[in-house]
Amino acid sequence: MAGTSSTDHTIPHASHTQDALVLRMDKAARALLASATTEEDTRTELQTMCLPMTALWCRILRFDPAMPTWPDRDRCVVPSSAMLPLLAAMLRLTAPAGAQELSPTLEYGQHPAVEIATGPAGQGMAAAAGMALAEQHLAKRYGRSLVNHRTWVLARDSDLATGVALEAAQLASRFGLNRMAVLVCPSPLTDPADFSDSLARFGASGWSVRKVRAHDLGGIMAALQATLRARKPTLVACMPECCATLPDLPAEEELTGPWSPTARRGGSIRRSWLRRLAQHRARADFEREQSGKARQTMREDWGRLWRQTMRAAPDGSSQQAAFAGLRSLAILRQDVAILAATSSTRSSRRANLPIPFSNTAQPCGIQEHGMAGMLNGMARHGGILPCGVAGMMTIDRMRSALRMTALMRSKVLYLLTDDGLALSDNGGGWQPVEQLASLRAMPHLAVFRPACADETFACWQAALNWPQGPALLILCPHPPPPRAARRTGHYGGPSHGGYLISCGAGERHVTLMASGPEVAIATQAGQHLAEQGLNVAVVSIPCWEVFAQQPAAYRTAVLGQEGLRVGIEAASSFGWERWLGADGIFVGMDDFGISAPANAVYERFGITAGAICEKVLARFLASGAQKDSSPTAPPPSRLEALDMSLTITRS
Amino acid sequence: MAGTSSTDHTIPHASHTQDALVLRMDKAARALLASATTEEDTRTELQTMCLPMTALWCRILRFDPAMPTWPDRDRCVVPSSAMLPLLAAMLRLTAPAGAQELSPTLEYGQHPAVEIATGPAGQGMAAAAGMALAEQHLAKRYGRSLVNHRTWVLARDSDLATGVALEAAQLASRFGLNRMAVLVCPSPLTDPADFSDSLARFGASGWSVRKVRAHDLGGIMAALQATLRARKPTLVACMPECCATLPDLPAEEELTGPWSPTARRGGSIRRSWLRRLAQHRARADFEREQSGKARQTMREDWGRLWRQTMRAAPDGSSQQAAFAGLRSLAILRQDVAILAATSSTRSSRRANLPIPFSNTAQPCGIQEHGMAGMLNGMARHGGILPCGVAGMMTIDRMRSALRMTALMRSKVLYLLTDDGLALSDNGGGWQPVEQLASLRAMPHLAVFRPACADETFACWQAALNWPQGPALLILCPHPPPPRAARRTGHYGGPSHGGYLISCGAGERHVTLMASGPEVAIATQAGQHLAEQGLNVAVVSIPCWEVFAQQPAAYRTAVLGQEGLRVGIEAASSFGWERWLGADGIFVGMDDFGISAPANAVYERFGITAGAICEKVLARFLASGAQKDSSPTAPPPSRLEALDMSLTITRS
Repeated sequence: MAGTSSTDHTIPHASHTQDALVLRMDKAARALLASATTEEDTRTELQTMCLPMTALWCRILRFDPAMPTWPDRDRCVVPSSAMLPLLAAMLRLTAPAGAQELSPTLEYGQHPAVEIATGPAGQGMAAAAGMALAEQHLAKRYGRSLVNHRTWVLARDSDLATGVALEAAQLASRFGLNRMAVLVCPSPLTDPADFSDSLARFGASGWSVRKVRAHDLGGIMAALQATLRARKPTLVACMPECCATLPDLPAEEELTGPWSPTARRGGSIRRSWLRRLAQHRARADFEREQSGKARQTMREDWGRLWRQTMRAAPDGSSQQAAFAGLRSLAILRQDVAILAATSSTRSSRRANLPIPFSNTAQPCGIQEHGMAGMLNGMARHGGILPCGVAGMMTIDRMRSALRMTALMRSKVLYLLTDDGLALSDNGGGWQPVEQLASLRAMPHLAVFRPACADETFACWQAALNWPQGPALLILCPHPPPPRAARRTGHYGGPSHGGYLISCGAGERHVTLMASGPEVAIATQAGQHLAEQGLNVAVVSIPCWEVFAQQPAAYRTAVLGQEGLRVGIEAASSFGWERWLGADGIFVGMDDFGISAPANAVYERFGITAGAICEKVLARFLASGAQKDSSPTAPPPSRLEALDMSLTITRS
Repeated sequence: MAGTSSTDHTIPHASHTQDALVLRMDKAARALLASATTEEDTRTELQTMCLPMTALWCRILRFDPAMPTWPDRDRCVVPSSAMLPLLAAMLRLTAPAGAQELSPTLEYGQHPAVEIATGPAGQGMAAAAGMALAEQHLAKRYGRSLVNHRTWVLARDSDLATGVALEAAQLASRFGLNRMAVLVCPSPLTDPADFSDSLARFGASGWSVRKVRAHDLGGIMAALQATLRARKPTLVACMPECCATLPDLPAEEELTGPWSPTARRGGSIRRSWLRRLAQHRARADFEREQSGKARQTMREDWGRLWRQTMRAAPDGSSQQAAFAGLRSLAILRQDVAILAATSSTRSSRRANLPIPFSNTAQPCGIQEHGMAGMLNGMARHGGILPCGVAGMMTIDRMRSALRMTALMRSKVLYLLTDDGLALSDNGGGWQPVEQLASLRAMPHLAVFRPACADETFACWQAALNWPQGPALLILCPHPPPPRAARRTGHYGGPSHGGYLISCGAGERHVTLMASGPEVAIATQAGQHLAEQGLNVAVVSIPCWEVFAQQPAAYRTAVLGQEGLRVGIEAASSFGWERWLGADGIFVGMDDFGISAPANAVYERFGITAGAICEKVLARFLASGAQKDSSPTAPPPSRLEALDMSLTITRS
């Protein structure tokens, strides 16, 4: 099977005729580029990269224009909108006769060969590395007879200079992604020394770096052929020559129709691939995974396996429950691929991170941003369900990549560990504060912050079913205090995004809402307040996005129509007005944390049951005093005597 | 003046006695480290770095323990909490007799020699580069007689592997920061090949990289001395030896008091520096800038100069006004240092970015994250007012660094260009959507989004006066439509964070709130609604943080007590409930943008005066219908006939 690797890609005897073909296609492409209106500087780059790109498409690329969604196609990633006209030209030249005319401004979503959305510089490099990793995963499972493609990137030099590209380059080299190749040329605006530095940094990251002259077809072909045999990821730098001229072609050699060599080669390779697929023993699995579906029995199997796993380790923290969920999911779904922000031999900082699936997760060390970018590429590749594991505090670094995930609505699952005020238990740390709000503000992203083991698993399932794209599970390493079984007034469940944990009968006086570790505090505060004669509802709201999608009647039933609303979360209040209204109370932290053991931080920011009760009672006393116009308020223990049916005057 | 450079730092004839001194201090430091409780892995690193750090402190570092805030001290940056015990040991050994005992868990804010807060890996490297750049700036202005220090970093290998450190390394080399030196050792958990790769990448980034044996004092001293003469930033990798033993010292050589060589050298250098300062012609400027103050006449001068500048370029976009503000500020305040995310010869992507101050701004190319990290260091260094210029869309990449700025409450000003739906005018771009909310959620950060030129300058002043730390100006390149002079009901001003642009007399029916380019749309919608007989107030709210700090009476006067509230912003609705209440209407975009000309995007997301009016009138009709229980609502043109004095029933 490995033998098919080279034959599919290389054309054994490069002849003069074939060179002429490339030059003809190049000429046609240049004509198309000339009509595309772009800025002067990008036009120079497009012209420089035209011959290398044409050579790739005409002679090497494994791509069938008649079926651009073919799973075993070569991925040709163009991460910047500046270079897209070149891809558009290639697609137009190779399109089968009668194909729909492409829009002149090609964009992600308009053609399946536009593999990723354009985004900040460097993201495309990371995504391409992710695609190469996905290919490696699938090739291991299905063999080279089904999975035998490569990932090409048409980058710009600004991509190479970014931190995320350098992180991804390190990971690509560490994971041995030798089927990834990057074509790049220096921008006319870049200092040549900077470009050389970029090449040197890729060399230092374990890449094979080659320089070719952008107008020398022989050199380009040699470099492209060399990438097919390379044992490292390859960077081909195409250096422009100011006064190079291409050989003139006879006039009758003008382009007349779909570009035959690419289409002919791609079509024939794909047909033989289809024959191999038809006879492949794992055909059903392959096709199901390519469509992104799971086995029908998955749901029950997963629940059973998760409960089994949890029985062996009954710690009950959301973090442990989520890892058990991931481990059992990875057993049931072979397409799960895990990248984890840990070093191979767990680094000391994260020594407490339980990664019991260390044989399945690929360690990405400190390169979280590169990792997140790669997860995008893995999701876009297809046939893979990518999961990322990282610390909650590192999400800021991954934000650009996460935005691309949400923007492309890709299914990527993140497990973010060490949430809450837990970090500081190791001393000298700052707590996440505004991260939750900043994530909830991102469209298409679902943020889950479960409170206990059962809630975690329900959130895991909801995350997998979240239709819009990526989902995050934000996890706490500390087990919550044991909770009484079902309380009175339990209504709904975590899969609805928010639900009633407990609620007394009759008119509601206070609704305490919390997520994650703060649910236990809310429950405790609820008990105290109930002892004071108040009718208290406790709501866990692990996922705002899912909760917001519930019918209004469900939301009202959970949040209640009257009474004081209190939000409790060890995070910024930003955005909580959505649930609390103008008169609600928020108990959290609107400042960066302090360095102290977790309990001390909870005390310091007043996120304790006692402090919550005080605030709530103070509000009732104030409103009671206002209502009665009596200068002395009744003591808290007498609150039950107040006529609560008149409810709270909104101050 | 340049000649003092080497003499201050080097001890010309390293003698055996001095080696013995270092070894004695090293032994004392090891004893202190042994008592510090740290994890096993970090303890190994601390032990490895002990001799190099001791050699630095004992023989090289320009630091007076009696005055750790001395402006011309060497900066010794320790970016990870894991390595802080080593700094604590140095501070304890060199502390003057009778000094207050240091807390065993040393932290940022507890001692002036802890230069930066610990944060995500790599941030400290960038901050140190920023300090070296600040030193370079100040040395150019005041000469080596006043500014002659260096920046040392005690890094970990995880720092080196991050994208932000690599970006900062490139910038450090590009800016010629040869007074920056990094000491690092491999972590016992890191693959040695990865560490070698890291060193190679720094070499490829134009750094001088040296390997020394961590127990070889001679080698260490030679490497440290070499950094003093280096023409590049230096990385000294201290390689641990498993079976190295340090020479035994006689028992009576135990430490008894403050470590004399460091204190003696530092004290003597500082005293001669004080003498030079006393006679320096620019002493007053130096001292004022070190205290972070501006000239008393600054405020008026700035306004005058800004108006002059604007007269020459009366385009009126907030972006142009902000750049005029920066340019005039840089003329008046010599301590302003500007880093801009543009390449030296403006890259094509940003060709439309007006940087009229290209001679003062230092170009950081695509390395925004490294740039933002450096701005932190520049602010922490003192004597510099750092300003960063970048595109609005790149703020996600800078987020980790920005968080450090806010956490340390450093004064850094950012000008973020190309906000709003403007980007897509160049075709093929995505608009910022959730960025505003994610920034507003960050504590201590003030986010300004001015609407017109005058508002921009008022925001500039407010940003400079924002007491809590960093401030962002979010700028639009398109000029707003001309606005009528003062309207009826104008109240307050942009420096209050939010103000009334116009308001009819009598009871308010609708309050339209907007920021930035959407203020013009709100004004237009207000006119239409007023024509329908509604009493409309238009509010511009350029800065939520400043507005939230105004007295409640002011906020109520601006927002009004009754009537419908409508928020208009071409961004995510997240967080707007704070101002709109539960029943307000938000007009914006809760999805990622589309690629189209700006006006088409406004149309597509319904952010137009017409669409706003429709929504408002529909709400009035619905509530009117509800109130009257009449099945047919009156036509909009008859709305004035409704008894509006009963105001709107909240639905």
